[in-house]
This record gives sequence, C-alpha cells and structure tokens, in this order.
Amino acid sequence: MSTTRPDFEAVFTGTIIPELIGEVKKTGISENAIEWVKKSFLHNATGGKYNRGMTVPDTYRILLGKDKLSEEDYKKSSILGWCTELLQAMFLVADDIMDSSLTRRGSTCWYLMPGVGSIAINDSFILESSIYILLKNHFKGTPYYIDLVELFHDVTWKTELGQLVDLLTAPEDSIDLNRFNYQKYYFIVRYKTAFYSFYLPVALAMHQAGIATPENLTRARDVLIPLGEYFQVQDDYLDCYGDPDHIGKIGTDILDNKCGWLVNKALELVTPEQRKLLDDNYGRKNSSMEKKVKELYLELNLETHYKAYEKKSIEEIRALIAKVDESQGLKRAVLEGFLNKIAGRSR
Amino acid sequence: MSTTRPDFEAVFTGTIIPELIGEVKKTGISENAIEWVKKSFLHNATGGKYNRGMTVPDTYRILLGKDKLSEEDYKKSSILGWCTELLQAMFLVADDIMDSSLTRRGSTCWYLMPGVGSIAINDSFILESSIYILLKNHFKGTPYYIDLVELFHDVTWKTELGQLVDLLTAPEDSIDLNRFNYQKYYFIVRYKTAFYSFYLPVALAMHQAGIATPENLTRARDVLIPLGEYFQVQDDYLDCYGDPDHIGKIGTDILDNKCGWLVNKALELVTPEQRKLLDDNYGRKNSSMEKKVKELYLELNLETHYKAYEKKSIEEIRALIAKVDESQGLKRAVLEGFLNKIAGRSR
Repeated sequence: MSTTRPDFEAVFTGTIIPELIGEVKKTGISENAIEWVKKSFLHNATGGKYNRGMTVPDTYRILLGKDKLSEEDYKKSSILGWCTELLQAMFLVADDIMDSSLTRRGSTCWYLMPGVGSIAINDSFILESSIYILLKNHFKGTPYYIDLVELFHDVTWKTELGQLVDLLTAPEDSIDLNRFNYQKYYFIVRYKTAFYSFYLPVALAMHQAGIATPENLTRARDVLIPLGEYFQVQDDYLDCYGDPDHIGKIGTDILDNKCGWLVNKALELVTPEQRKLLDDNYGRKNSSMEKKVKELYLELNLETHYKAYEKKSIEEIRALIAKVDESQGLKRAVLEGFLNKIAGRSR
Repeated sequence: MSTTRPDFEAVFTGTIIPELIGEVKKTGISENAIEWVKKSFLHNATGGKYNRGMTVPDTYRILLGKDKLSEEDYKKSSILGWCTELLQAMFLVADDIMDSSLTRRGSTCWYLMPGVGSIAINDSFILESSIYILLKNHFKGTPYYIDLVELFHDVTWKTELGQLVDLLTAPEDSIDLNRFNYQKYYFIVRYKTAFYSFYLPVALAMHQAGIATPENLTRARDVLIPLGEYFQVQDDYLDCYGDPDHIGKIGTDILDNKCGWLVNKALELVTPEQRKLLDDNYGRKNSSMEKKVKELYLELNLETHYKAYEKKSIEEIRALIAKVDESQGLKRAVLEGFLNKIAGRSR
C-alpha cells in the first residue's frame, strides 16, 4: 500500500512544523520572526506533488517487504521524505529568483510575495538548515546518521553545480545556441535534477532499511540516474508537445531560451538555413517567433526522434534493472515501480 | 607565536583551492564552470582580515601549550579556520544582495561583478557546500568529525535567524524606529555575528584539541558571546565616532537605517521633540539629515554613555574570564588574548 498525500502531509503539519517552530522559539526570537518562518515553510514546502518525498516511505516499505509500515517506521521514513522536500524547497525559492519566475505550483513565487523580496535568499538558507535539525533530532544515534548527513551534503553540492552550468549555459539576457550541446544538457539533467529527485529519496530509504552498502548504492544510482535523464527528456518533450490541460501548464521552454532536449536534437539535424531560423527565433519571449521554432520542430520530425529515443531509453533501463543484483537486499521492484510510473506518462 | 596572514593564505592557495577545484573537476563539468567557481572562491573568500579564520590555529596552539604547531597540525587547524572564512563568505555574498551593498573589502560586491547578478545566490550555496567537503576530506575518521559538522550546522542556523531579525527590523524601504529596541538589537548581535565570529573558531580549536566537553564549550560560549556583543557595540560606536582613515571606511549606519547601539541608546534618552527629529532624519540616505542625527547624538552625550558601557563591559568580561574553570583543559589565556585584542581598539 503506497503512502497517500494526506498521510504524508499530516507528518508535516503534525511533526515537522511544530518541531521546527519549536527550534526557532528556543532562541527567544521575536514573534514576527516566528510567524515569518512558519509562513515561509508553509508557502515553500507544501503544495507540490510530493513525488520525491513520498518515494522515501514507499521505497522503504518495499525494501522491508511489508504491506504496511508501523506508525513509527512510517513517521521516520516520512521525515526523511520531508527532508528531500525541504531541499527541493530551498532550491526552488532560490531558482525562482535567479530565473525571474512569476509563479510556482500555481501560486506567486515566494520572493514576489508582499514584503519578501530578497529576504527570500535567507529563507532559502533557513529551509536548508532545517533539514539538518530534523536529521539530528530523529537520526542521531542511528548507525547511519552521518551517512544521511553526508548524502544530503553531496546531493546538495551536485545540484548546485548542475544549477551553475544551467545558469551559465542559458543566461536570461544573452541568447547563443553555440553554448548548447548534449554534453552540457546531460550534465544539467543529471546534476541539477536526477541526483536529488531520483537517487536521493531511494538512497535515504536504503540507509533506513540498513542495505546501503557501497555496492547497493552504486547499483541503485546506475539505474536511477538514467531514469532521471529519461524523465527530464520526457519533461522537455511534454513542454512542447504535451496537452496543456493534461500537464497543467503551458510550456515556455522555447520562449525562455532553455537548453532542452528538443533544441539540442534540432541543432543536430538542421541545415544552415534552418539553423539561422533557430538562431533568430529561439528564446525571444515572442509568441510568433516561438511558433516559427515549433514549425521547424515539425519539419525536423522531432516527435518521431523523441519516440525513438523513448523506446530505446525504456529498453535500456529495463535491461539495467534486469541485471540488478538483489543478493544484498536491494529490490528490483523499487526500480520497476519507478519506471512504470514514468514510462508513457502524459503529464 | 601567532599565525600570520601570509602563512594562513598559503593554506588557501596551496591546499583549499586545488582541493575544491579538484572536487569540481571530478564531475566532468564544463571548463567555464570550473573557472567560474575558482573566481568566486578567490573573490569572496580572500581579501578580508581573516581574524575569524586565524583564531582557529592561534587558539589551538595556546590550548596545546605550544610555542609553534607542527606543519601537519597547523595545516589541519588552518583548514578549520578556512571553513569559518568560507561560512562568512557565504553569508557576505548573500547579505550584500539583500542589503543592496555596493562594495565589500574595498572591491565591488560579487553580485555586481560583470555577468554575475543573481547567479551569486547559487555561488553562495557553493561556498557553503565546500565547507562540508573540506570537513569530510580532512576530518572524517577523527572522533570529533560529526561534532564539527553539527557545530557548523548549528552556527549557520543561528546566523540565519539573526539575519532574519535584522532584515525584518530594519528593512531598507521602510523606516520605523518603533521596531528598534535593545532586545532585538542584542538578538541580532548575538545570533547574526557573535556565534559565528567568536564562538565558532574557538569551539573548532577546542574540538581539534580534544577538550570540547559540553562543560568547556559552555564555559567558552559564556565568555565569547558577551565578548562578541562588546565587539559589535564598539563597531557601532566606531562607525559614527571612529576616524575614517583609521577604520578604513566611512560609517553609514545612520544613512542605512541600521538598528545599532547608538540609535537604541538615543531612543532611550530622547525627549519627545528629539524623538521627532530622530524619526524625521534617521535612515534617510541624505547627508544633511545624517548630520542632524549626529548633532543630536552629541547633545545626548552618546560618547560618554558609550565610554561608560565600554568600561563596564570590559570589567564584566574580565570577571567572567577570571571565573573560568581550567580543570578540563580550557585556558583563560585564549579568552584573555581575545579581549586584549579588542579592548580599546580604534579600528
């Protein structure tokens, strides 16, 4: 039985928030600061899909081979899940400032809320710090406490490097498709997204289940990072070809000068004339120029190329999963479940 | 023999930078990103006075009772010193954005350097992450590794809460002296400055020296936090009354609407008419208004009040030091040295 959004959110409301606000209060800080932190936690850590967070208790349950976790086990696992959500929140608050985004999860970005502005930078730091408070309060004393701490440090570092390459490759104010290439694209995908979204929650559950040997962690990573790549390519495809009613947003990658899979594929296929059209129209914040790029994508049959990529990717990941050694307690079912959730999704 | 700036900087150039850049390179990141990170480290972590950083090897040497540290001990201790400098760098990069500052240590602020802008937020994250890479590389395996990690987490959290109260108390765009009071002032001083500047470097050296029992840490903290308070009050005094040639900068606390010691003292002493003058002229980015505030400070004899505060503070800190129990290996000389460096400084 997989966890549900209400059950997972109940851990946030019932445990995480009271505990973190309790830590803030311990300092004797002013009342308005307590309220501020609470508002920031609620605005920035809730309202998402919790796919990353809920993966921790779901994976832990499968690794234990149980149908249902005890209340205590579920709570501990969900706290780790919330730590991944807090890490994501820290990054999203900062990314939205760096990308000049306007909305996030259907709400106004935190830094654009009345009175917030650049204080959001410090709020992003506070979200990050709260991860280590939770780890200390709930896992100090377990044999894997330092592993959890180091895992968060390592994944944070990797995500920051991915974000750096993304920022340097597609700066908002300067369009130059010569900066784009597949090598950078896959670096950004792996480092900015795959490690924290795919590897982190599974690795956390593996530590909790006591099966996080170096070999098992490598086995999991060697499937989860390609899975994360496939997921992101699919995301890039859906941004342009998905049904907005279905995916819940209107794609803006072309307008936003994103170094995505489609434009990289196009760069591989274009004639010099088509390249000129791409140079002149990509990333221009202008919908008739966006339309020209989309027409070029049709001419280049990008959809067919994507379908071929997808088929091959799924086959490769299935083959990787089939080879996974379960002798040290890792379970293929964890990875299969992941793939099945993603393969063929339309949103 | 105290450490010197050149010796301390040599550890940065010879060890810290090559090691961190090596970690960046391990990921296979693009060349321009490697250069970017190197530039950010150099711009943001060097050029200061290194008072905090050099305190670590200096304190460690005194605690060991040696005249000179072995090369190995000096290096390890200086790496901890550089971790405090990196923590400070992380905060300064972000604070400069949040305060809209123009210069830092005589150079242009990092976020105002060509092509940087809000990417500085991510650079600030990277500076923080590098602390934990250094701790892992050099201290994993020592019995106090987790203590170092937790100490950095705890001090980071406290500094962020101090920064939050500072930002909420004196926002750039809204002046309201009713928000100021001594309770907030001392909270900001303790949390935003004293923990990371005074407690952190000494606590790090105590861990390295193997004398960081909970009792010893409390003993050190109970002197270092008041010392940090005295230091900051002195800083606020020098901002207005110090000789700009001597302190190396022209004070701007009145112009910048800072919740400093002088304005809090003034608020305590003013008549209703004087309060009106203060309300009308404080924090206005206007030098003739600044002059009116300074004239009011003269009328109120703030300098005399400061001198009385200083005398009393030094006496109290000396009394605290005299009571410090040395039976568990803490040395009063560490704390005395600190006080002597600060007391009566003119810059």
